[in-house]
Amino acid sequence: METTPYFLDCDTGIDDSLAIAYLVASPGVDLVGVGAVSGNLAAAGGARNTSDLLNLLGRPDVPVAVGAHDFLSHAFDGGAPHVHGRNGIGEVELAASPTPLREESAAEMLVRLAREHEGRLRVLAIGPFTNLALALRLEPDLPRLVRDVTVMGGTAMAPGNVSPVAEANVANDPEAAAEVFAAAWDVTMVGLDVTMQHRFEERHREALLAAGTPAGTALARMLEYYFAFYAPIFGRPSAALHDPLAVAVAVGGVTLTSAPRVPVVVDATDGPGRGQTIADLRALYTDFAEERRGGSRVVLAIEEDFGDVLLERLLTL
Amino acid sequence: METTPYFLDCDTGIDDSLAIAYLVASPGVDLVGVGAVSGNLAAAGGARNTSDLLNLLGRPDVPVAVGAHDFLSHAFDGGAPHVHGRNGIGEVELAASPTPLREESAAEMLVRLAREHEGRLRVLAIGPFTNLALALRLEPDLPRLVRDVTVMGGTAMAPGNVSPVAEANVANDPEAAAEVFAAAWDVTMVGLDVTMQHRFEERHREALLAAGTPAGTALARMLEYYFAFYAPIFGRPSAALHDPLAVAVAVGGVTLTSAPRVPVVVDATDGPGRGQTIADLRALYTDFAEERRGGSRVVLAIEEDFGDVLLERLLTL
Repeated sequence: METTPYFLDCDTGIDDSLAIAYLVASPGVDLVGVGAVSGNLAAAGGARNTSDLLNLLGRPDVPVAVGAHDFLSHAFDGGAPHVHGRNGIGEVELAASPTPLREESAAEMLVRLAREHEGRLRVLAIGPFTNLALALRLEPDLPRLVRDVTVMGGTAMAPGNVSPVAEANVANDPEAAAEVFAAAWDVTMVGLDVTMQHRFEERHREALLAAGTPAGTALARMLEYYFAFYAPIFGRPSAALHDPLAVAVAVGGVTLTSAPRVPVVVDATDGPGRGQTIADLRALYTDFAEERRGGSRVVLAIEEDFGDVLLERLLTL
Repeated sequence: METTPYFLDCDTGIDDSLAIAYLVASPGVDLVGVGAVSGNLAAAGGARNTSDLLNLLGRPDVPVAVGAHDFLSHAFDGGAPHVHGRNGIGEVELAASPTPLREESAAEMLVRLAREHEGRLRVLAIGPFTNLALALRLEPDLPRLVRDVTVMGGTAMAPGNVSPVAEANVANDPEAAAEVFAAAWDVTMVGLDVTMQHRFEERHREALLAAGTPAGTALARMLEYYFAFYAPIFGRPSAALHDPLAVAVAVGGVTLTSAPRVPVVVDATDGPGRGQTIADLRALYTDFAEERRGGSRVVLAIEEDFGDVLLERLLTL
């Protein structure tokens, strides 16, 4: 089977863990490298979680590089331990991977891989956009070297999650996100508009736990922590599937039913809209009938119940 | 029948004309004064349209005052002749009212009426917020003197109409809107979330024209102009009912099915979000189950088809 090279940038993270497991279980995916960035926790801790999880998933061969600890305009401020636990993965302890982390930075790794797989590398970013912005500065020709970029981040119409209008990945580093959306590559944005609509429910978690695989069990235990955070937001234990849904969009695991290509600008002011992804959806009322060139593809809806899709894929691990 | 005193501030305007007609036709409404502000056209022209329309509606007794020509931070820039026509009312010529405009300004009129009807006056603002902001500066105690404020303006989740995130009334004078939303009065926001969902269609316009009343005929002719603007937005001749829906919400002519009370902040930066009303809808996923104090009431949905409601009311003229 022909495979496609993917580079993943992440801040692992409970939903990042689900995303990594989904990606590893996806046919045709050649995961050639993973970068870690601060976000849910510090970059070094996220890299360690990523490496240990890849080992648990039987992929200790996938190279992992530590990326930016601080954001472009300000220092990392401690992440979201109330969402993801102090260790980033809901206090679940994973066995340490025997594979050392790479000496190159995540941005350097991305640039190297883009050159090695010129025109073919697909980039997936499910944490803050700092490493991608640094890679663009290292190699201004990066947009031409990669095939496309899919990001979990932002929101077009749905409420934000760290401010009334800002989503966490973008809000952590709005300057970086602004550079990434402004660059001349093909960006697909998977934001809260769609990720808040697709949940892992207790029934999914129980099925995953019942499967009894080492990875499934670890993920199900992490989800217990994540569900507790979301319970007051959704009114029941449940979790939004932010990062895994972005991966599914990138690998073609779901069917997009609304994903207009529109201009997206990031608010990097110090005003109340800081960190907002301002997507121009004014053609909403004619269902975006007119095809646009340029801009970003903003995913607003998919056909499937992604909780079901994700569970099915995780049960193959 | 007991009546309630209303002050209306407007920039007449085609949908303002519908709003004025609806208000005049509403039982229990005592329209004690109308102010005009620049917006769709210059304040002086809007005041003249308002006065002439009130005369046509058999209400030459309602006092009309001219308000702010320029906005708080910048000069009026010519309005929206492509939407409302050069004269603001789709090139329809109305007979001149015999009643002269008031010598007091709109802001002075609002303050005077608030004092005269202390605790009872209901304020309706369907143009830019400049006159209300000036009135707040003239009389800082204004929020205590009026009963409540209903505004057509802003948008919480729906796309904007003059930028990807900004609605015209707020975008015309973001500094004034910021002051109005921040003041300690009870504000109900009727924004694009709901106004873009309720339309006057060609069948409504034809029924209004067929009634053959002088006011109905004038309004139906104005709507022909307005429909042409909206045709590419909605894919057919049709018009969003911005201003009349705000009036209907204020007078209780429609049933609110979603109208959470949430904090609203106006983006008055010079960034890409300038003019956005940032409403905190993060409790959306639990359907705003928890009652909040303070904030503004943001109307997101009503029960009726407002096109039908409006037509029915206009046919009583």
